[in-house]
Amino acid sequence: MASQFGTKIKVQIFGQSHSAGLGVVIDGLPAGKKVDLEKVQSFLDRRAGGKNKYSTARKEADTPEILSGLKDGMTCGAPLCAIFRNANTRSSDYSKTEALLRPSHADYTAWIKYDGFQDRSGGGQFSGRLTLPLCFAGAVCMQLLEEEGIDIFSHILAIGDVKEEPFDLVDITKKKHENGAFPVLREEVGKQMVAYMEQIAEEGDSVGGIVEIAVTGLPCGVGEPIYDNVESCMSHVVFGIPAVKGIEFGMGFEGCLKKGSEVNDSFTMQGDSVVTATNHSGGIQGGITNGMPVVFRVAFKPTPSIYKEQSTVDFYGKKDAMLQIQGRHDPCIVPRALPCVEAAAAVVLYDLLLQK
Amino acid sequence: MASQFGTKIKVQIFGQSHSAGLGVVIDGLPAGKKVDLEKVQSFLDRRAGGKNKYSTARKEADTPEILSGLKDGMTCGAPLCAIFRNANTRSSDYSKTEALLRPSHADYTAWIKYDGFQDRSGGGQFSGRLTLPLCFAGAVCMQLLEEEGIDIFSHILAIGDVKEEPFDLVDITKKKHENGAFPVLREEVGKQMVAYMEQIAEEGDSVGGIVEIAVTGLPCGVGEPIYDNVESCMSHVVFGIPAVKGIEFGMGFEGCLKKGSEVNDSFTMQGDSVVTATNHSGGIQGGITNGMPVVFRVAFKPTPSIYKEQSTVDFYGKKDAMLQIQGRHDPCIVPRALPCVEAAAAVVLYDLLLQK
Amino acid sequence: MASQFGTKIKVQIFGQSHSAGLGVVIDGLPAGKKVDLEKVQSFLDRRAGGKNKYSTARKEADTPEILSGLKDGMTCGAPLCAIFRNANTRSSDYSKTEALLRPSHADYTAWIKYDGFQDRSGGGQFSGRLTLPLCFAGAVCMQLLEEEGIDIFSHILAIGDVKEEPFDLVDITKKKHENGAFPVLREEVGKQMVAYMEQIAEEGDSVGGIVEIAVTGLPCGVGEPIYDNVESCMSHVVFGIPAVKGIEFGMGFEGCLKKGSEVNDSFTMQGDSVVTATNHSGGIQGGITNGMPVVFRVAFKPTPSIYKEQSTVDFYGKKDAMLQIQGRHDPCIVPRALPCVEAAAAVVLYDLLLQK
Amino acid sequence: MASQFGTKIKVQIFGQSHSAGLGVVIDGLPAGKKVDLEKVQSFLDRRAGGKNKYSTARKEADTPEILSGLKDGMTCGAPLCAIFRNANTRSSDYSKTEALLRPSHADYTAWIKYDGFQDRSGGGQFSGRLTLPLCFAGAVCMQLLEEEGIDIFSHILAIGDVKEEPFDLVDITKKKHENGAFPVLREEVGKQMVAYMEQIAEEGDSVGGIVEIAVTGLPCGVGEPIYDNVESCMSHVVFGIPAVKGIEFGMGFEGCLKKGSEVNDSFTMQGDSVVTATNHSGGIQGGITNGMPVVFRVAFKPTPSIYKEQSTVDFYGKKDAMLQIQGRHDPCIVPRALPCVEAAAAVVLYDLLLQK
Repeated sequence: MASQFGTKIKVQIFGQSHSAGLGVVIDGLPAGKKVDLEKVQSFLDRRAGGKNKYSTARKEADTPEILSGLKDGMTCGAPLCAIFRNANTRSSDYSKTEALLRPSHADYTAWIKYDGFQDRSGGGQFSGRLTLPLCFAGAVCMQLLEEEGIDIFSHILAIGDVKEEPFDLVDITKKKHENGAFPVLREEVGKQMVAYMEQIAEEGDSVGGIVEIAVTGLPCGVGEPIYDNVESCMSHVVFGIPAVKGIEFGMGFEGCLKKGSEVNDSFTMQGDSVVTATNHSGGIQGGITNGMPVVFRVAFKPTPSIYKEQSTVDFYGKKDAMLQIQGRHDPCIVPRALPCVEAAAAVVLYDLLLQK
Repeated sequence: MASQFGTKIKVQIFGQSHSAGLGVVIDGLPAGKKVDLEKVQSFLDRRAGGKNKYSTARKEADTPEILSGLKDGMTCGAPLCAIFRNANTRSSDYSKTEALLRPSHADYTAWIKYDGFQDRSGGGQFSGRLTLPLCFAGAVCMQLLEEEGIDIFSHILAIGDVKEEPFDLVDITKKKHENGAFPVLREEVGKQMVAYMEQIAEEGDSVGGIVEIAVTGLPCGVGEPIYDNVESCMSHVVFGIPAVKGIEFGMGFEGCLKKGSEVNDSFTMQGDSVVTATNHSGGIQGGITNGMPVVFRVAFKPTPSIYKEQSTVDFYGKKDAMLQIQGRHDPCIVPRALPCVEAAAAVVLYDLLLQK
Repeated sequence: MASQFGTKIKVQIFGQSHSAGLGVVIDGLPAGKKVDLEKVQSFLDRRAGGKNKYSTARKEADTPEILSGLKDGMTCGAPLCAIFRNANTRSSDYSKTEALLRPSHADYTAWIKYDGFQDRSGGGQFSGRLTLPLCFAGAVCMQLLEEEGIDIFSHILAIGDVKEEPFDLVDITKKKHENGAFPVLREEVGKQMVAYMEQIAEEGDSVGGIVEIAVTGLPCGVGEPIYDNVESCMSHVVFGIPAVKGIEFGMGFEGCLKKGSEVNDSFTMQGDSVVTATNHSGGIQGGITNGMPVVFRVAFKPTPSIYKEQSTVDFYGKKDAMLQIQGRHDPCIVPRALPCVEAAAAVVLYDLLLQK
Repeated sequence: MASQFGTKIKVQIFGQSHSAGLGVVIDGLPAGKKVDLEKVQSFLDRRAGGKNKYSTARKEADTPEILSGLKDGMTCGAPLCAIFRNANTRSSDYSKTEALLRPSHADYTAWIKYDGFQDRSGGGQFSGRLTLPLCFAGAVCMQLLEEEGIDIFSHILAIGDVKEEPFDLVDITKKKHENGAFPVLREEVGKQMVAYMEQIAEEGDSVGGIVEIAVTGLPCGVGEPIYDNVESCMSHVVFGIPAVKGIEFGMGFEGCLKKGSEVNDSFTMQGDSVVTATNHSGGIQGGITNGMPVVFRVAFKPTPSIYKEQSTVDFYGKKDAMLQIQGRHDPCIVPRALPCVEAAAAVVLYDLLLQK
């Protein structure tokens, strides 16, 4: 089940960075749901990244072609398949140095796993490009969640040492970031982050960061104990996004060092509803949503491709070597990773919602 | 698939805190493998916890009865089923206050999910007791991993503010903790942690912490891209352990704020082998093991059961109320959580190893 | 997933013929459903077979012990686990001849598959005894189907050359067979079948037969295209019952040799409902129920254990040999197979009904 | 998991009869396997049917476009995706009569299941056209099986009352049918079948039939007990082919009415190998291959589309009506169904072989 996830909704991803195409099949969507492809495109554009000093400019339009699953703009019960073309594939960039394992990439592990038969160009199936079909699936599920009054918000919490303040766990700032805008809560922090990334780009280096996601409007009772709980399913898919090294829910690592009396979430009545006064649980108790916002944070490592020369190994020659990576690479993928995490959240939660 | 996980090895957990029994079925184990039940018992005893001021003393022996799957002490290709009896179930402890939702427990979410039909006594299927069958499965898989030269080490990294130093990611301290010993690298830190937990216990409060796990001896190539990678599968099962709020691999959250040039893992030849000079990747690149130690950390929240009075809701009366929790509860579950995480690691990695 | 099936409901079977016990875990049952264990027992008694010349008399009571999943007689959302003890295991019957492969048994294939580590006594996990936990799961699901107005009927269609007439596909004879009664539509045919089986028993031989199942009351729309359709899911589980060699739906093999104009099922209005005038489709079109009775037939081969001497191979000696099987064996398993097929039908259809 | 099957190999089908395209994703193929696309095309051409009086002439070339999964003609570890275009879609044929439910088609069941949102044109996802991606997957797996010395043979056993003789179960006639040739063992029977189908076509009627498949060269030990055995997995996928109403293995229904002494398969040594003297088991014992040819038969109902006027229901008007189906339709799909069953066999057996 390598490239697949989901229970009620099955998402099957396919493609390589430089294959003829890539795409996704979404099996199990309910019939009779309108899918607004313009909204989908707008979401995909967020992932594409803008034209600036801190993101690569791959020229593809990244416009999905719908092969099946929609009839007159509505889901029809058949699997929804969307494909994308890989137009801008310059495999030649890679061939000269293909035996030089890029540090902290999947070059070495893929080589061993597939006995040399892996598609090396552009990272093959390990490329960040494979988040494109995930984002398509997320964009579709997000629309279906919105119909139920469920919304997903996100922002960048940190890039290197430049830090934004986290969400108030109870009262989420419901700011939807327009395409092109830098996705932070406070504009001045965004400017610092951009300046920092530009500086890193000039150094030929890269940097990582942390994103924070909040989902509001979820009913109580979403998630299946014990092993298909919200945190299990969410982390499973989120770690399928390249470069993720950590995930935490609610109060996270820091809150876990506190006392129970400090972080227990007292229940209280709000009108006829049971709510919690605080939300250190991040909207999840026993793995099941409790009606409060679901909040989690994801850590992305620095882009492993940097322009600084690195020591590595020549795999054919089985000897140490030096590597100078060429081509364009984002100094920081965090801004473009944000819609990927939102997409993962959308698919996972819609899948669990249907199971409820 | 609520209480089930795994691909080649399927692990099905069952039971409630106060049902007649609980247990596990492990389907897919290769035939002809010796299972040493004494070693299994010794592992389960680590989870049981000792007789001290910071752990509860449930009286069950927690000895598995093997119903199927072994023949003359060897696996025989049939599913391995082990059951445990729940001898020490005092449901009466809970009935008086059952409508008072315990803060940060699964009481409320389970109630809504199961429409009031959930088994409330002792936390039902949400009880930490359900980690017992997981530990059984882990103890079995651990033996099979050891046959392949793969070992799992762990220690407590933090309890509240008392912190141990982390593993050297390249050169793991291979310390196996004897039963009864406090699982830290430096004895003096262990004493501080014990003293802190005893103080917390006297306050009627609780505290959480962080555990760190390292797996050595794994070959390169374990893990299935994109969505059945090591991190996805590991986090999926680890979040099935009650009280987990975060997981991070290798350099984790902190390392993600650094520059690529600081945390990229250079490859180098070590004799005929490719190794990395550092191990910020935590032994995993592109979701697949690279032959270096797999290292990850897991955050456990403070035990939600505390003796201090808490405000909550009377679910029947739909009104605010005060709750005073009775009975014995660990002020800190971290020492007993350690074997649970090891067990999760063992099952996940053995499953992925078989898929290789 | 060897010993497991189901999608929304997961059924995990475990046990061997002579292991300490055997049983089943049913994960995914909705909470709040009453399970009448007396009715379950009554169903299991049908499988046990009576005291007569054509069925073996294994002494176990075959009474399930419920370990988990029920609270006050109701499902509680946790997996339902039932176990049975293997009291009457006489492994010594088998040890002397264990290297003599019994013709048309799984002895040889199991030996190769498990490299000699299979549990040979009593057929191990290949024993017909493993239909006991299936019948438990079926008995539970049958009760939940009956709540929805869905009933399962069955009868023996043939034993050797003695044949009963098939169901009228549109107007099913709703005859529930009392325990002990011979399950045919016409009593005189039953007497002929019993006489035939007794004669076969005296010859030291065995015989097979065909059973027919009908399910009434199913709504239209049950079944998932393309590959989780009713026929696919039903046949998958039915072939998990030992000795099954064929399955056909509706008009079956014979009807498939006719012309479309003869066997197409015309639609017609019956009050406000759409029905079909005939039911050659067996209640299934495009793999989905159409509201008409679902009817299928299953062929069971003769019990491979016969008293007549047979030529075979001594697997240790790798030479031809003669085998004289000892012990008690049914000359015909068809009467006891009937509840097994009903059970399969109940679990499969309840699982698909929940997915609807 | 509607449009998906497989365990080690996951096959995900997508598309509708008249959507932009249809296709398949095959996840889990081992890397480094050569795929000969010309041989694939040649196999697909068998399914396409020739230009004659008994098969429809849809104009598509049915040539797969490979989007991913191959690199330099070899599998590369990434999912293999092949798509086909639907060029010749004349939806207008259907719109006028769309409310008239076609007898024995999926029109009514799809309507109810998808609440009117199903894609009705050309049968939507229920169309026989969806066997095209199955055949692609089968053609690929067949090549990989052939590398292991495993071959699949098939022939038509009956069309209406015109019957071919069955395979000798022990000594399979290894006749590969060239494209265009009528797939029977004896040429004169083929001529009778063609003549019969032409007569049926002239009557405006249709007819069904039976196909027989044999797989040679399988090692002993393929298949997973209890519920992922060869018969369970095979029947699951075979019933996903439209129009299948029955499947039987080895001696099938007829043999099940015989005595054990007549149909038990004696073991005997053949050189160093254990073989069976007869093969009533159809190469499968306990659900696992025993090294003898795997043989099974599949019954296909008559094409439900006939030119004769039929009574049905106007679903909008909820009243009885008459239907006269237009357009071209095969009077008998059996010749084109043969490669579909072979494809199912290839994928199922290759999947089980990889699990071995």
